[in-house]
Amino acid sequence: MYRVACMPGDGIGPEIVAEGRKVLDAAGEKFGFDIEWTDYEIGAERYLKTGELITEDELKELSKFKSIYFGSIGDDRVKPGILEKGILLAIRFYFDQYVNLRPIKLLPGVSTPLADKGPEEIDFVVVRENTEDFYVGIGARAKAGKQRDELEVMRNLYNVRFGIDVETDADELAYQIGVLSRKGSERVMEYAFDLAGTRDKKLTSVDKANVLTEVYGLWREVFEETKKRYPDVTTEYNFVDAITMWFVKNPEWFDVVVTPNMFGDIITDLGAMIQGGLGLAPGGNINPKGTSMFEPIHGSAPKYKGKNVANPLATVWAGSLLLDHIGEKEAAAAVITSISHSIEKGAVTKDMGGFMKTSDIGDWIAKDILKG
Amino acid sequence: MYRVACMPGDGIGPEIVAEGRKVLDAAGEKFGFDIEWTDYEIGAERYLKTGELITEDELKELSKFKSIYFGSIGDDRVKPGILEKGILLAIRFYFDQYVNLRPIKLLPGVSTPLADKGPEEIDFVVVRENTEDFYVGIGARAKAGKQRDELEVMRNLYNVRFGIDVETDADELAYQIGVLSRKGSERVMEYAFDLAGTRDKKLTSVDKANVLTEVYGLWREVFEETKKRYPDVTTEYNFVDAITMWFVKNPEWFDVVVTPNMFGDIITDLGAMIQGGLGLAPGGNINPKGTSMFEPIHGSAPKYKGKNVANPLATVWAGSLLLDHIGEKEAAAAVITSISHSIEKGAVTKDMGGFMKTSDIGDWIAKDILKG
Ligand SMILES: CC(C)[C@H](C(=O)O)[C@@H](O)C(=O)O
Ligand SMILES: CC(C)[C@H](C(=O)O)[C@@H](O)C(=O)O
Repeated sequence: MYRVACMPGDGIGPEIVAEGRKVLDAAGEKFGFDIEWTDYEIGAERYLKTGELITEDELKELSKFKSIYFGSIGDDRVKPGILEKGILLAIRFYFDQYVNLRPIKLLPGVSTPLADKGPEEIDFVVVRENTEDFYVGIGARAKAGKQRDELEVMRNLYNVRFGIDVETDADELAYQIGVLSRKGSERVMEYAFDLAGTRDKKLTSVDKANVLTEVYGLWREVFEETKKRYPDVTTEYNFVDAITMWFVKNPEWFDVVVTPNMFGDIITDLGAMIQGGLGLAPGGNINPKGTSMFEPIHGSAPKYKGKNVANPLATVWAGSLLLDHIGEKEAAAAVITSISHSIEKGAVTKDMGGFMKTSDIGDWIAKDILKG
Repeated sequence: MYRVACMPGDGIGPEIVAEGRKVLDAAGEKFGFDIEWTDYEIGAERYLKTGELITEDELKELSKFKSIYFGSIGDDRVKPGILEKGILLAIRFYFDQYVNLRPIKLLPGVSTPLADKGPEEIDFVVVRENTEDFYVGIGARAKAGKQRDELEVMRNLYNVRFGIDVETDADELAYQIGVLSRKGSERVMEYAFDLAGTRDKKLTSVDKANVLTEVYGLWREVFEETKKRYPDVTTEYNFVDAITMWFVKNPEWFDVVVTPNMFGDIITDLGAMIQGGLGLAPGGNINPKGTSMFEPIHGSAPKYKGKNVANPLATVWAGSLLLDHIGEKEAAAAVITSISHSIEKGAVTKDMGGFMKTSDIGDWIAKDILKG
C-alpha cells in the first residue's frame, strides 16, 4: 500500500488529476498494490477566500508522504508569481526537490513541429536543478525600502559600473540574484551522471559560463570534477543559447542533459514542444530521500475549466513517473504503453485530433492496462 | 562618404568580413556612395601576445565612427568569457548599444528544421535589450575575497533563505546579479514600439515575471506604461519558456518581440535556427545616437579558419543592417535581394548545399548587385 498526497489545484487541474488517478488505481489493481489518496485543497480559490497559499502545517503533514500528485495552479484573478512562488516553488524548496526530471520523448503517432524527426530521434531526458540559481527569490525594487542594506550594495555596484547616480532616483532600479552552491550543483550532477549510466552514457551540461562567469563558472568547475568519477560517461557542454538550436536541429544528439534551474525551465518547454506539446509533457520534482512531487508541466488553462475537454495525458504520464519513483517499474512502463495505445487508436482529446472527452481518457487507459 | 571601423577578429572572422566588404563596396558603387574602412586588429591573437583586449584609447577612437563592422571572436586557447566580456560586451556597454536587433526571416530557398513553415510564416524581428539584466557582470565566488561586503550580504541572504551556514564553508558559493533600470527598459521598449509601428503593429514582450518577480516585474510595469503611448500597437506577453514553444510551433504569430538581455540571447539563437541556422543570422548592436556595431551572430569557428569554406552570408546580411542604419535603405534592400539570388541560384557554400568557396560568395553577390 502506498500513500500519495493529491493536489488537483486550479482550472483544469481537478479534471486531469481525476483521470490520472483512475489510471494509477488500475495499474495498482493489475500489478498488485493499492494507493491511498489524501486530498489537499490548495490553490487560487482558497487563496482568494482566505489569503492562504500553503501553510507550514500542511507542509509538515506532506512530509509524511513519499509522493505528491500535483495538477496545476494559476488563476487570472491572481497576480503572476503569487501562486507559483507561494505554492509550487514553495513545495519544491521546502522538500528540497533538487531534481526536476523531464523526459523528452516523442511517442509513436504524435506529431512534432520538426521536419524529418520521429520517435527514434526524440528521446532524451532533461535533469533540471530545481532549488537554486535565479529561482531563490532574492531580489528587490529600489522602492521596497525594507532591504536597505542590500540595496546600498546594489547601488554602489551600479554606480561604479555605469556611472549612474541612482541615489537621487531611487525608484528606478530592480535587481535579482542567482545563487549556486557547490553542494547544490554536485548532487544534481551526480543524479544526472547516474541516470546517463542507465541509458546511452552521454551527458550534456548546459551553462552560459562565457557571460555569467561566476555562477556558471562554478557549475562548470563542479561538472569537470564530477565527471572524473564517471569515466564511462561521455560529456559535453552546450551554451544555453546554442542548445535551443540543437534541440530543434539535432535532438538525436542528446541522451541526458543537466541544466541549472532557469535555463532548465526554458529548454524543457522547448523540449515539450518537440515531443508534441504541453499536452504530453510530464515532470517529476524529486528528492531521492524525501517527498517528491509529480505534475504535468502545463498550466491550469482557466478558460477550459469544467468543460471536460482538457488533455489529461501529461498528468497520466506524470503518474507513470510517480510509479517509477516509488519502485513500481513494471506498472510505470505499462502506463506509458497504454498511453501509446490510446494515441495509436485515436482515443485522445480534440487538441490531439480525437473526439474523446477528458473523462473518457482515464477510463480508456485504465481498461487498456487491465486487459494488457 | 561613410567611415566604417572594421574588426575582423578571430577564426573565420577575417575571411567572412572580407566578403562582406566586397558586397558593401559594390553597393556603394551602385548607389553612389563610398565607404572608407579603418581596420582594428583586436582578438585572441593579440590578447595571447600582449594581454590586451580592447584598450580605452581604441574605444575613444572608435567613438568617432557611427558604425563598426565586426566579424567574430573566440579561440580555444582562451578561457570562456575573457574575449566575450573583454571585447564584444565591452563594446556593447561602452557605446551603450542598448538595442540588439535580430531579424528572423526565412529567405526563399532556405530550409528550416520546422515542418510546414515557409518564408510567409517566418518573418519577425527580435529587439533584445543589450546593456542590462544578467549581462552587467556583477557577481562573485565566495573565494574571491575582494568583495567582502557584497559577499557578506549574500551570505546573510543565503543563510536566512536556506539555513545553510556558509560562513564556515566559504568557498562553496557563487552569485550573479541582474539589474534592470526603468530608463534602460523604457528606451528599448520605445525602440520596439516604434519598429512595430513600421511593420504589422504587433509587439510581444518576453519575461519571467512569475518567478523573477523583481526585475521582470519592473520590465512588465514599464511595458504597461509605455504601451499607453502607442495605442495602435497590439501587445501581448509571453513567458520566456512559453515563447520558445511558439517560435517553433507558430512563428507566424510574431511581428516584433522585445526581450530582456539574457532571454534575448537564448531566443535569438533559436530564431536563427528556424530561419536556416547561424550561417544566415545577422545582428545589429545599436545606439541610435552613437556608435553601432554589426556582426554575424555566429562564433569564430576556429577549426574552419583559413580553409575558405566558411559561409559569409550572415556577415553580408549584417552589412545590410549597417547600410540600413546609416540611411542607405535602397542599398540595404539590394544586398538582401542579392543574397536571395545567390541562394536561389545555389551560389552558396557547402553548409548550404552549394559548391562555392567563401571567397567566391562576395564576388558573386557584388556582381549581382552591380548588374541588378
Ligand atoms: C509555473 C512556474 C513557476 C514553473 C517554473 O518556472 O519552474 C513552470 O514553468 C515549470 O517549468 O514548472
Ligand atoms: C558571445 C556572447 C557573449 C554573445 C551573447 O551572449 O550576447 C552571443 O551569444 C550573442 O548572442 O551575441
